[in-house]
Amino acid sequence: MQNSDQKRYDKIADDQPPFALHFGLRILQAHPDCLRAEFEVTEALSNRNGVLHGGAIMGVADNLGGTATFLNLAAGQGTTTIESKTNFLRGVAIGETLSTETTPVHRGRRTQIWTTRFFRSDGKLAAVVTQTQMILSAQDRRW
Amino acid sequence: MQNSDQKRYDKIADDQPPFALHFGLRILQAHPDCLRAEFEVTEALSNRNGVLHGGAIMGVADNLGGTATFLNLAAGQGTTTIESKTNFLRGVAIGETLSTETTPVHRGRRTQIWTTRFFRSDGKLAAVVTQTQMILSAQDRRW
Amino acid sequence: MQNSDQKRYDKIADDQPPFALHFGLRILQAHPDCLRAEFEVTEALSNRNGVLHGGAIMGVADNLGGTATFLNLAAGQGTTTIESKTNFLRGVAIGETLSTETTPVHRGRRTQIWTTRFFRSDGKLAAVVTQTQMILSAQDRRW
Amino acid sequence: MQNSDQKRYDKIADDQPPFALHFGLRILQAHPDCLRAEFEVTEALSNRNGVLHGGAIMGVADNLGGTATFLNLAAGQGTTTIESKTNFLRGVAIGETLSTETTPVHRGRRTQIWTTRFFRSDGKLAAVVTQTQMILSAQDRRW
Repeated sequence: MQNSDQKRYDKIADDQPPFALHFGLRILQAHPDCLRAEFEVTEALSNRNGVLHGGAIMGVADNLGGTATFLNLAAGQGTTTIESKTNFLRGVAIGETLSTETTPVHRGRRTQIWTTRFFRSDGKLAAVVTQTQMILSAQDRRW
Repeated sequence: MQNSDQKRYDKIADDQPPFALHFGLRILQAHPDCLRAEFEVTEALSNRNGVLHGGAIMGVADNLGGTATFLNLAAGQGTTTIESKTNFLRGVAIGETLSTETTPVHRGRRTQIWTTRFFRSDGKLAAVVTQTQMILSAQDRRW
Repeated sequence: MQNSDQKRYDKIADDQPPFALHFGLRILQAHPDCLRAEFEVTEALSNRNGVLHGGAIMGVADNLGGTATFLNLAAGQGTTTIESKTNFLRGVAIGETLSTETTPVHRGRRTQIWTTRFFRSDGKLAAVVTQTQMILSAQDRRW
Repeated sequence: MQNSDQKRYDKIADDQPPFALHFGLRILQAHPDCLRAEFEVTEALSNRNGVLHGGAIMGVADNLGGTATFLNLAAGQGTTTIESKTNFLRGVAIGETLSTETTPVHRGRRTQIWTTRFFRSDGKLAAVVTQTQMILSAQDRRW
């Protein structure tokens, strides 16, 4: 991999949309084959049970799935999430740092499928999100 | 339905966790059979394509699914989302007001399943989220 | 609706693939807006617990989702299931007759989403399957 | 692992329910950590497009997920699938031999989550099925 490729990947990963800023997501590795990030589980992300809100997990995952897909697109292409499935395995306490790993299940011509895993600081898996992205060409943007 | 019941429902619905506040969710109707809400699609909720972030839809839905389940619990019971599935149908522009409707698919002894539909102001369906809540008794809280 | 339309719908619905024959599915109503069917829960469809196998429910639903999509296609188009999600709510005893109802969630240019509900003879909902079909044009058949 | 353990695993794996027989599933490895199997894609399993029916993939996966869970249960416990999610990636031609690999995502006290991957003979991934099994104790059988 050339240095200029990595610069392009980092630029895509750094260019996070407003909604992602709410999570304080830090991208640790941005590569077309693997995207790694982490974020602090703050009070602002808590639910009724006083632990991390499931919606925050899904929000982070949707953002990472979109970013990972972008890292694999050609110029002029776009992407939109068409569906997403989450399994919640364990609660995550406020104050934790969650690590995420986003890896491809499928990178086809028309769809890409990405899985994001969330790990607690004790190394245990907290949640798994798999989502399907539809690839949009310039003329598909009407979708 | 007695007036005191509705007061209890409204109290549950009003008692929203920190993460939900980010969405500016307004509960319009809180009843064990149907939960209706709405929120403004602000710039803070946008994605890379300049429309509503899919993560915001899933965050709102997770919050509403949990609230709806709470409206159906007995004293001492709790709930946790174990899985969630979303279909995204149409983009939602910044500035829109989205309406939501959360209705039960199943209210069993051990699980409840709720579907939240998101409608744009043109009446078109933008997304559908279905999630499974596991009912926790006092001794189950270890889950 | 003209009579010739209904004949075309019935022809599509009757033209069931080999795998569907294993379920003994009877199509009761074939219309682009709603597909209704029923089948007997025989011993051949049972699981380890001696009730209807979840795989049979998903097999029937996949077949009906594909059929419903076909009822909405133009000449030359095809369809393939890209994802499917099932919630199992209640067990179904051997000897039951299950009724199914398949209705559209979304009929877009590029995807269609269909939900199939399974009802027991006591009228209770046994399972819900929602699946996304990707629409294929002649040149897309390479997918 | 003792020899008697493996005998018990093989007995569980061999004890397939009637619906599974339709698929001609051969269990290659039965172990609490990994279940591997294979089956021939016969004409009887085909769909309208003349390739493997998606329902057959989901039926096989449901059977394997249940079997894998059984390999991890204590005496007196049972299991039921509460939800299942499938992504279909590639078509599978009649005449193929499909290999499957079923591995745990989560083995908790109340639920187990298993993923089954389907590989074509060219080594390419054809489908991924993840499902949640609810663990039933003797008194839970009323579920």
